[in-house]
Amino acid sequence: MRKVNIGIIGFGNVGSGTAKILLSRKSFLAQKIGVEINIKKVCDKDITSKRNVSLDKSILTRDASAILNDPQIDIVVELMGGVHPAKEFILEALKKGKNVVTANKALLSECAQQLFREANDRGRNIYFEASVGAGIPIIKSLREGLVANKFNAIFGIVNGTCNYILSQMSATHCSFSQALNEAKAKGFAESNPTLDIDGLDAAHKLILLTYLAFGKLVTLKDVFVEGISHISSADVNYAQELGYQIKLLAIAKKESDELEVRVHPTFLPNNHLLSSVGGVFNAIYVSSDLAGDLMFYGPGAGQLSAASAVVSDIVDLTQDIKAGLFRPTLNSVEDTLLKRVRKIDEFESRYYIRFSALDKPGVLAKISGILAKFGISIASVTQKEKQKTQIVPIVMLIHETKEKDLHQALSIIDRLAEIKEKSVAIRVEV
Amino acid sequence: MRKVNIGIIGFGNVGSGTAKILLSRKSFLAQKIGVEINIKKVCDKDITSKRNVSLDKSILTRDASAILNDPQIDIVVELMGGVHPAKEFILEALKKGKNVVTANKALLSECAQQLFREANDRGRNIYFEASVGAGIPIIKSLREGLVANKFNAIFGIVNGTCNYILSQMSATHCSFSQALNEAKAKGFAESNPTLDIDGLDAAHKLILLTYLAFGKLVTLKDVFVEGISHISSADVNYAQELGYQIKLLAIAKKESDELEVRVHPTFLPNNHLLSSVGGVFNAIYVSSDLAGDLMFYGPGAGQLSAASAVVSDIVDLTQDIKAGLFRPTLNSVEDTLLKRVRKIDEFESRYYIRFSALDKPGVLAKISGILAKFGISIASVTQKEKQKTQIVPIVMLIHETKEKDLHQALSIIDRLAEIKEKSVAIRVEV
Repeated sequence: MRKVNIGIIGFGNVGSGTAKILLSRKSFLAQKIGVEINIKKVCDKDITSKRNVSLDKSILTRDASAILNDPQIDIVVELMGGVHPAKEFILEALKKGKNVVTANKALLSECAQQLFREANDRGRNIYFEASVGAGIPIIKSLREGLVANKFNAIFGIVNGTCNYILSQMSATHCSFSQALNEAKAKGFAESNPTLDIDGLDAAHKLILLTYLAFGKLVTLKDVFVEGISHISSADVNYAQELGYQIKLLAIAKKESDELEVRVHPTFLPNNHLLSSVGGVFNAIYVSSDLAGDLMFYGPGAGQLSAASAVVSDIVDLTQDIKAGLFRPTLNSVEDTLLKRVRKIDEFESRYYIRFSALDKPGVLAKISGILAKFGISIASVTQKEKQKTQIVPIVMLIHETKEKDLHQALSIIDRLAEIKEKSVAIRVEV
Repeated sequence: MRKVNIGIIGFGNVGSGTAKILLSRKSFLAQKIGVEINIKKVCDKDITSKRNVSLDKSILTRDASAILNDPQIDIVVELMGGVHPAKEFILEALKKGKNVVTANKALLSECAQQLFREANDRGRNIYFEASVGAGIPIIKSLREGLVANKFNAIFGIVNGTCNYILSQMSATHCSFSQALNEAKAKGFAESNPTLDIDGLDAAHKLILLTYLAFGKLVTLKDVFVEGISHISSADVNYAQELGYQIKLLAIAKKESDELEVRVHPTFLPNNHLLSSVGGVFNAIYVSSDLAGDLMFYGPGAGQLSAASAVVSDIVDLTQDIKAGLFRPTLNSVEDTLLKRVRKIDEFESRYYIRFSALDKPGVLAKISGILAKFGISIASVTQKEKQKTQIVPIVMLIHETKEKDLHQALSIIDRLAEIKEKSVAIRVEV
């Protein structure tokens, strides 16, 4: 049986999970694919700590070049994370004629152009199924299963930490910081959760999804990103009263001949399937022109879940290697109808808005007058009874409006003497 | 650019959709895959009716052998449906060294063993993505994306007609026959809907899913099949009151070292994601040991949706052909821990039961006494006020119990003088 040698760089959580699967499922996989996958070397700066897989000590190394320079290694699996030196390692592996598997969304979202070009020039491939939605085969589905489709939109819940926090806030009516602390205690949030709660991790993943669906490799600058740390329990509760859930959505959406690429908390109606995606789960909702509206759901993180995706990439590469054929990673065809990526000011959205006003006659008239001046049309309004404080929450849903108009209107409203806190505005989708 | 010739047998709904996509996306696909897909011949007994795609008349034929005997045709796409002569055409195509794409679940569920063996012996492939869930890439996901996984269970809503009927009954409280008529009027049910509402279509699809997940090619005899035509609006309404939806589920489930393969109406709790799958949509919920619990959702039917899957199979085969490499279709590895397929009598289920009793003292005591004799334990019971008739509905949820015990108990209960109608029993899952 043909043997394919792999080298793993990064022996942390996903790296050791990958090794574990490759060892424990060795003959199972060999029977399926007709290839024996052999872990030839594993590199990490820490090669002494105990992992939940036992490898022969002789294959452990602290020196990545022992993998990159080994002519018998066919596939380099980069699971160290971070941009440097992961990027240099991958480039070197490609130069040496190796194929690459990575789960590194931060790196890919920053350097995909360079890495994919290098792979293409060398006739090699970079696979990255684990970089979005862990074990959910969303990348393979977009690239292969839906190969004939053009896409209208992608809506993704792609950050489990944020989804856990928002789900908890919705279920227990707790505050953002309580939910965050709970997430940390349960291991669903890093001790420094900034990358997650600020929406940046979701933005990295969205860049990859956008590339696969629209053939456009946008940069982080093109993506509007808003996190969830300003979401209050009041807003979560009003959302429920109005029949909505708040979700952090990663959205790539065709609007006539332009593309919108954005990550932000979003009011989603309860009857939308994405609203039912709770806890740390991820789901990617895809609107395609032939196969229709599809959703792919599963755990968005986890050692074995991510490693399951890494192994599926390795398996695909073994078949490519056996055949001497590489499907080019650059096989996304740009949708030439898309002229440009929209700027945030040009987005049009429906909105939920919460004003914090003093309980005085005429406040609502003033607010709605200012909105009207900017052509903003109110879909529904609820004025709540005042709380212990003198502040009355006024909750509105407004019809589709230009971001620019709304922000101008809100900045005027927020300067009114009767408005006691900055107004909250959350986009409404679907 | 390498050209791959295909021949389509069956120029009906999906066949003409496939031709339409291949023509309209010809250069789009060629850019992606580096292969030009050429429709060389299309066979149907009717080659004169107008379709929504215009093909050169010279490629239309009434004679399948014009495709099967054409040495330039690399891929035969069988979309005629039915067992004969589709089976003979596929066997002949394989004998002639061609690869095959089919959407024919009825044929595959009956003859997969023979067809797959023939393909394997000839070093050729049969792909069948469109046979389950139309455009949802569930087969590719099970086979490739989740290649390293073993599976605990699959729960599928795989028949759009039944799901539409049950969703309508739930939304509008109409009767089964009203919902069925509506489904027919909207084109969601065939004029003879037996194959769908009796659960047979779902069983065909379940056989394929079971094969992919567990490596076991069961036959229709191994599958317990119960349709939905006996579901009453009363049961749908009680389900709602209890916090459940009734769905026709196709289930393949490992229970220690045995496999249960069954299709039946099922009470699913509202908080299960499958409960939110409404209308004609399909969803396959997969419980895997590495990637965790996943769900794949989308339209379960439709010309372009099914054709999208057919084209993805064709594309995969073009890559195989280019490389001269065939991933064997028989790559499912049997789960050797599975000793046998369980018989229906051995299943254990929780159950919803509705008794129709006379409003007399002591009825509930008699019923619960008989249940207790068979070791059946009641989880909850609600006795409803009697309707205009003298009949009182008694609604129970019971704990896990052997099918055999329950049926014996019910047959005794149904002979009681106080029981006026056959009791209704519906399995509860998850």
